[in-house]
Amino acid sequence: MNYASELRRVYEACLPFVGEGKVADYIPELAGVDPSYFGLCLHEIGGATHSVGHANVPLSIQSISKVLTLAMVLPQNLDSFERVSVEPSGDPFNSLVQLEYESGIPRNPFINAGALVVTDMLIAREAQPKEAILEFVRALSGDSSIGFNLEVAESELATAHRNRALAHLMRGFGNLQADVERVLDVYCHHCALEMTLEQLVHAFAFLCRGGRSWGREVMPLRAVKRINALMLTCGFYDEAGEFAYRVGLPGKSGVGGGIITVLPGHFVLGAWSPGLNPKGNSKLGMRALEMFTDNTGLSLF
Amino acid sequence: MNYASELRRVYEACLPFVGEGKVADYIPELAGVDPSYFGLCLHEIGGATHSVGHANVPLSIQSISKVLTLAMVLPQNLDSFERVSVEPSGDPFNSLVQLEYESGIPRNPFINAGALVVTDMLIAREAQPKEAILEFVRALSGDSSIGFNLEVAESELATAHRNRALAHLMRGFGNLQADVERVLDVYCHHCALEMTLEQLVHAFAFLCRGGRSWGREVMPLRAVKRINALMLTCGFYDEAGEFAYRVGLPGKSGVGGGIITVLPGHFVLGAWSPGLNPKGNSKLGMRALEMFTDNTGLSLF
Amino acid sequence: MNYASELRRVYEACLPFVGEGKVADYIPELAGVDPSYFGLCLHEIGGATHSVGHANVPLSIQSISKVLTLAMVLPQNLDSFERVSVEPSGDPFNSLVQLEYESGIPRNPFINAGALVVTDMLIAREAQPKEAILEFVRALSGDSSIGFNLEVAESELATAHRNRALAHLMRGFGNLQADVERVLDVYCHHCALEMTLEQLVHAFAFLCRGGRSWGREVMPLRAVKRINALMLTCGFYDEAGEFAYRVGLPGKSGVGGGIITVLPGHFVLGAWSPGLNPKGNSKLGMRALEMFTDNTGLSLF
Amino acid sequence: MNYASELRRVYEACLPFVGEGKVADYIPELAGVDPSYFGLCLHEIGGATHSVGHANVPLSIQSISKVLTLAMVLPQNLDSFERVSVEPSGDPFNSLVQLEYESGIPRNPFINAGALVVTDMLIAREAQPKEAILEFVRALSGDSSIGFNLEVAESELATAHRNRALAHLMRGFGNLQADVERVLDVYCHHCALEMTLEQLVHAFAFLCRGGRSWGREVMPLRAVKRINALMLTCGFYDEAGEFAYRVGLPGKSGVGGGIITVLPGHFVLGAWSPGLNPKGNSKLGMRALEMFTDNTGLSLF
Repeated sequence: MNYASELRRVYEACLPFVGEGKVADYIPELAGVDPSYFGLCLHEIGGATHSVGHANVPLSIQSISKVLTLAMVLPQNLDSFERVSVEPSGDPFNSLVQLEYESGIPRNPFINAGALVVTDMLIAREAQPKEAILEFVRALSGDSSIGFNLEVAESELATAHRNRALAHLMRGFGNLQADVERVLDVYCHHCALEMTLEQLVHAFAFLCRGGRSWGREVMPLRAVKRINALMLTCGFYDEAGEFAYRVGLPGKSGVGGGIITVLPGHFVLGAWSPGLNPKGNSKLGMRALEMFTDNTGLSLF
Repeated sequence: MNYASELRRVYEACLPFVGEGKVADYIPELAGVDPSYFGLCLHEIGGATHSVGHANVPLSIQSISKVLTLAMVLPQNLDSFERVSVEPSGDPFNSLVQLEYESGIPRNPFINAGALVVTDMLIAREAQPKEAILEFVRALSGDSSIGFNLEVAESELATAHRNRALAHLMRGFGNLQADVERVLDVYCHHCALEMTLEQLVHAFAFLCRGGRSWGREVMPLRAVKRINALMLTCGFYDEAGEFAYRVGLPGKSGVGGGIITVLPGHFVLGAWSPGLNPKGNSKLGMRALEMFTDNTGLSLF
Repeated sequence: MNYASELRRVYEACLPFVGEGKVADYIPELAGVDPSYFGLCLHEIGGATHSVGHANVPLSIQSISKVLTLAMVLPQNLDSFERVSVEPSGDPFNSLVQLEYESGIPRNPFINAGALVVTDMLIAREAQPKEAILEFVRALSGDSSIGFNLEVAESELATAHRNRALAHLMRGFGNLQADVERVLDVYCHHCALEMTLEQLVHAFAFLCRGGRSWGREVMPLRAVKRINALMLTCGFYDEAGEFAYRVGLPGKSGVGGGIITVLPGHFVLGAWSPGLNPKGNSKLGMRALEMFTDNTGLSLF
Repeated sequence: MNYASELRRVYEACLPFVGEGKVADYIPELAGVDPSYFGLCLHEIGGATHSVGHANVPLSIQSISKVLTLAMVLPQNLDSFERVSVEPSGDPFNSLVQLEYESGIPRNPFINAGALVVTDMLIAREAQPKEAILEFVRALSGDSSIGFNLEVAESELATAHRNRALAHLMRGFGNLQADVERVLDVYCHHCALEMTLEQLVHAFAFLCRGGRSWGREVMPLRAVKRINALMLTCGFYDEAGEFAYRVGLPGKSGVGGGIITVLPGHFVLGAWSPGLNPKGNSKLGMRALEMFTDNTGLSLF
């Protein structure tokens, strides 16, 4: 498979649609992003990395960070991961409802409630959780320049009413241990990580390589299998079924317009375009990824 | 990979647990099944079939049939499959609730409501839908002896109050066209198909072989990819996430205790044990399949 | 209190609004009703009856009939009324949802599911339930000419998909005993009763007179108190709170645009205007009743 | 009617049941209350007050205070009371669910979310809201010794996770203006008011006297009518229908075991017994009140 030419073919077919979708506007820092950014980047298991478009412009990774924090806590908790469930949420209404019906146990680690619990687990372990996250992500990406966008983190914190509601509710159920404001602070920071598509595909390479990154084992294969399964069933809000149906790759999206996908044993493939569809996933990003797996026949299924 | 010895290894490790779980008892025909049945059967893409235990005893395939009827109607409707959605249901409460909130459009073709719509589509196309189903399944399995268990079909029909409710509700929303009793009759018959594990793994081989069965194309790869994706995200009631997380294969279960899974390009693997877990999936079947993918490292992820 | 002049005062203040709201259109027989009908009728406990406007034109009483069938079965079941609850539904979504969560026990006898159970109780007791209903209503009204509109009953039956769904669901839970089609037939007939406002206020007089009608005891005071309480908390679909808040009288509405209210010990007051508000209650009827209780200071509270 | 002897008759019939139910135990201050307290107190519109049992022991009035704060803000907002709805909640699950589905507008002012909005309205108006509440309640009761139990207020504040969740969610929807912690502080204080049954029936007398208290107008009749209607449809959590059905009086309960009811134009009747039923209402209190209205025939209906 000539990945570089397949990538370019998809890129060109998508160019007429650049700008489609609606940029996230709940904080000014995201609302101001240029909607014409569009990039694709594929990292082969063999080591080569292929880019087209804006693959080297930093984007706000937002919910994509939930995979990275999960990767920090899952391996040590593989047989007792009981504070978060692993089922798709299926609920368009942002899950406060489910959380209440299900006694404060979030449906999965990729909805906000679940990611808050994962953050809480991280805080319990790390004296300096924000620094630990930076260190982990920089090591995976092989790039020590990666950092938080502090304006984004501040803005998110100031408007995080619903996440505060989720956190207090879980605290009421006994499923959050650290102080609510502390959990929100760490959470809003990891969502405010800024990375380029190239940095992202390198950071996710361990999910393609059976748990190894730059020659080191990050986690055992059993953990990798579970994270990839979670991305497939829960990685795209309440559009996970549609994404699996049309694209057929495990992955994770963020409201910054980024999407990272993995075909285990083959490649990590990222797409970025800030315009979102009504479900909150990058519209052009999904289009490009579907085209790629339809053209190449490369998908899980 | 020596599939035969891997299969036997799992089989033997599971033997001490034979009989675990609770046999479905809502109709007498299922309640009377011997709980000590246990079989595994793997069909390689190369053509070989390996069996251990009760792989040649007929079982009531129940919801596994929903994949087969979907396979009959999806290819012709691939670009306009709009009467059924493709999202996981996420709702333990059997989906009458969601169906109401979502205007009569079932969440996916594997919950009962969705399978009733698929059956309705089949009735619109086939003058003799029950005969057409038999013909399709016999051709896929290469075995013309396969038939319905008429006692099971009758019993299901007599107690199908909830399915009647679902059907009338969808008819109220305009998403069911044939007469409700006619749809239920065809539906209860295809759920009452009796097949052995060996017949089942052969019938599902087209999902492993890119749409081909016995050398003929049953459907294009695009359709296969979508059915496999649906099995992964929606094939196990509200335990689909757990199954993906632990086993990592697309598949479909039935309350008769059967489970069929597929690793595209590699194998079809079936398991049967009548005892169910509280979510309605074969308890020992799930145990065996998880052990198989953990032992061999063979899964989607 | 000069009821006649108060009634006329409200009537005249309301005339400019005649025609407001939207006539029910789910069956042709209701859709064809002249939207300019408007009448008020008050029956004093002392015996006098005062009418203005179209108080002698027959209207389709629809859900108002649910009070009458409840009155037929409640007295004998006062201490064991367990197949239906007595709580407001609070759910705009027509209660299929609640019915499922609450194991087939309807929230109250005035939502459709509850009225179907009441009808089922009536069928269990009466060999000829439709005739028994006619006899009961004619006796209360003192008018033997009252009957069903058979075209309305047929039309309702033909389109009763959602009620069929409710009935089959309750049958699945064991909370419906007669055949579903039989229950629907009786139910659609009593909803198709045609009565004038004058007939209606006379029929409801026992709820104002402590259970007595034309000098006979229809039911004990304990039963009257409970029916009036149910009308106040549950008589206006999911607008019961608003009606209590603004009008402050127990009552029952129907999609034919009729509303009957009771001030125990004082009067029965009916209003009719076919135009409905978005919650399904007569828009002008509610306006007139609110004006009446605000003007006179006569309400429960 | 000889209220004193009727009250005594009910009291004596209830004595064998003293201690039934379960004392609220979510904070130590409530958990420690002696479960054998039991009192009744009736204040006639004519002016006489009749007591039996522990009518002069202070109790934690808890949610009963929601009527008093509503009385402070409703009159000035009678025609634009739009930040809170007036419908029964019908939801056993504490309303976080409904609040989300209904865009942050609480169902009514007596569920916690609604009372928090009412408190927020009070804070917007009063520079010193806690002092203003004390002043209002002392004036209504004619007793300047009434105060907050500060230990109870502190304990409630420390454990108010779910109320914090509600408040942050409403703030996210823009339906809460003051700082969340400030709203909770005032809210937890008014719930921590300590009053005797005698003080309470005097404080509620304006709802029996058309808005007048000690000869002064507290609010117009239109406002009284609406508060009484709200107490009837929403005053007893998700047991409001049952209470209306069995007792037939508007009223409000608190988890301290107090219940205050009103028959407009006749009397205010209070009951106190700390043991609660599973719905959170005083078990013996409800028994006594039902007996009183059944014995005397005095109820709204």
